[in-house]
Amino acid sequence: MRKDVLTKNIASTRVKKIPASSIHEMTRLSAQVPDPAFLSWAKPTSGTPEHINRAVCEAVQRGLVSGYSPSAGLPELREAIVEKLKRDNNIDADTSELLVTVGAIEGLSAAVMALIDPGDEVLLPSPNYSTHAQQVVLASGTPIYVPTIEEEGFRLDIDAFRKAITPKTKAIMYCTPSNPTGAVFDEKDLRSLADITLENDLAVITDESYEYFTFDGARHFSIGSIPELKDRTISCFTLTKTYAMTGWRIGYVHTSSDMITQMQKAHIPFAICAPVVSQYAAMAALRGPQDCVSKFRANYLSLRDLACKRLDELSSVFTYQKPRGSYCMFPKILHKDGADSKSFCKKLLLEGGVSTTPGTDFGPTAEGHLRITFCCTEAEINKAFDRMEKYFG
Amino acid sequence: MRKDVLTKNIASTRVKKIPASSIHEMTRLSAQVPDPAFLSWAKPTSGTPEHINRAVCEAVQRGLVSGYSPSAGLPELREAIVEKLKRDNNIDADTSELLVTVGAIEGLSAAVMALIDPGDEVLLPSPNYSTHAQQVVLASGTPIYVPTIEEEGFRLDIDAFRKAITPKTKAIMYCTPSNPTGAVFDEKDLRSLADITLENDLAVITDESYEYFTFDGARHFSIGSIPELKDRTISCFTLTKTYAMTGWRIGYVHTSSDMITQMQKAHIPFAICAPVVSQYAAMAALRGPQDCVSKFRANYLSLRDLACKRLDELSSVFTYQKPRGSYCMFPKILHKDGADSKSFCKKLLLEGGVSTTPGTDFGPTAEGHLRITFCCTEAEINKAFDRMEKYFG
Repeated sequence: MRKDVLTKNIASTRVKKIPASSIHEMTRLSAQVPDPAFLSWAKPTSGTPEHINRAVCEAVQRGLVSGYSPSAGLPELREAIVEKLKRDNNIDADTSELLVTVGAIEGLSAAVMALIDPGDEVLLPSPNYSTHAQQVVLASGTPIYVPTIEEEGFRLDIDAFRKAITPKTKAIMYCTPSNPTGAVFDEKDLRSLADITLENDLAVITDESYEYFTFDGARHFSIGSIPELKDRTISCFTLTKTYAMTGWRIGYVHTSSDMITQMQKAHIPFAICAPVVSQYAAMAALRGPQDCVSKFRANYLSLRDLACKRLDELSSVFTYQKPRGSYCMFPKILHKDGADSKSFCKKLLLEGGVSTTPGTDFGPTAEGHLRITFCCTEAEINKAFDRMEKYFG
Repeated sequence: MRKDVLTKNIASTRVKKIPASSIHEMTRLSAQVPDPAFLSWAKPTSGTPEHINRAVCEAVQRGLVSGYSPSAGLPELREAIVEKLKRDNNIDADTSELLVTVGAIEGLSAAVMALIDPGDEVLLPSPNYSTHAQQVVLASGTPIYVPTIEEEGFRLDIDAFRKAITPKTKAIMYCTPSNPTGAVFDEKDLRSLADITLENDLAVITDESYEYFTFDGARHFSIGSIPELKDRTISCFTLTKTYAMTGWRIGYVHTSSDMITQMQKAHIPFAICAPVVSQYAAMAALRGPQDCVSKFRANYLSLRDLACKRLDELSSVFTYQKPRGSYCMFPKILHKDGADSKSFCKKLLLEGGVSTTPGTDFGPTAEGHLRITFCCTEAEINKAFDRMEKYFG
């Protein structure tokens, strides 16, 4: 009575609730298309700045990266992070309140694991970065989407958040500047959200990956800088977007030192510690010259303007909210086939030669949209839009 | 009615079930002791071999490590892993059956997440590496310990495993060569365990971190090499022990390609991809000269012999099973204060100046023991035992 293969029920119901990622499906499909134009990547085309690479090689050659670091991260790195949080986020941190993580993503997973019990509800804006909901499902929690106000630039709908709270609500989780919409949540709205979390004894988990990429005077606001919120906020940051080093997988979390103790119980089973070689890269990034960041931001701004200009010329196919941050935007599809964004994007790739990301993964109000990323070259954007003009022509 | 701090119930009941790690508590305590002798580290004192460091610097300077890799890992690295699994583990793998992970530990977490539903039981030998049980608890599963036969070198007790199976049992999870005991599970016993998993439609999750460090003719056997088991085994490996590169956080998993698809749903939220710089280190390690591995093994063997010799001279305080693998051993404390291993180890550190790890974390039959690691210098072992001789005088 031997069975030679894993039976169907051997995978957990948990992962079965998570659909396969459209982003990764599109990547696979793209391999079947000769020379596709990519508006679907969320990784910078710039390389990691030279001074960071040099510092890493020096640390490697000096034998500094062979062994584990403390699981919370190298003390010198945490000191550099304390300075950065004070300078740029208005957060007064102590090194005991920091955890160095494998990108922001591992910090977000550890945060959810440390907060969410099976059945707990987590409120997320819709549209929102798709992985957050998956992290909640991995913790056997329930993601509850709260629609944003699209016509006001995907603005937070504070009343809708208030109404969505139930006795099971444990936390609010969001990404600003937003992947996928490019929204930058206003300080005023975030302060109202803070009031709600205090009134209802909730926690907040933030994903601030795109903090340095804001345009048109929009200002990134860290909710963890509100003194009353400090101990109930888990703020997740990364260096990988800021310094064009996505491959290095290095980020960090700020929260109370008590919560750090709880999060370590997830962080150690997930990673033991963040890669030490990348911790040295992070130190070089934080301590080194910051002009690369302004250069990246200026570059994204000019690419955003180009993408918007080209979208304006396709106004019968798309309408859009101008992104105020990140390097993503989230046009609504006016085209008659747009209601099913997955098949729309698939056709656009296979027949039009342009790779984009269907909206469907990003929340219930995200269907009928697609995500365009403009962290690529001008030439790539022009190639993609030239093709779309011909395709929709 | 504002509350300014996270209320007690804000951390999940899940993480509250996980005690703070004794290993990390001992590390913290060690900082209070002037010049402690360390028998508590599980990281090699050797540095990462030069040829690996050189290859990494070249890849960094060529700008190859800036961006994400595919979430399953670089194709060239997976090809090198296919060859290694064939050569050293007798496992016929395809690149679609591999996932490159943040050390073995992230692969183990992703495996548990992809397999275990809340309430599912996972059988673990006792003593066992403490993090495995924590990974099961993070998935809201229940770790069930099955005692090993200590007097036969912490051998697997197959009958005890058979008896421990209930309708809720989903998987068996173990580490061989074993941290903390140094046991190397026999092929014959592992084949019996394979029969049990087939008869009861279970999965197996292995941690084979110490696969290359076996002594006295003991041979590491990968249960995933049994053809009938291939599709129900998730085999977790790491390069960090083999090549003295614990800080690099790089490992990999072999299982069926269907299970890889499920595991990606945890791997992406945990890490997106393994650090690319470390993937280049891994390629250099797998493709480069392997004499460093034999050298490390010979070194651990001679350190093991020294530790055993010194333990023999303390036979009124400890009795032990000679480790046949890994770089850990797990003496039983004969001393009158040994029943509470935590306070025994704490006293030994604070009064005797020797840092060891209390057994208590490693399972219900592990109390009354301590873990000694011999991945250090001869001088460190001698210093520690000289002090213990004086302390127990």
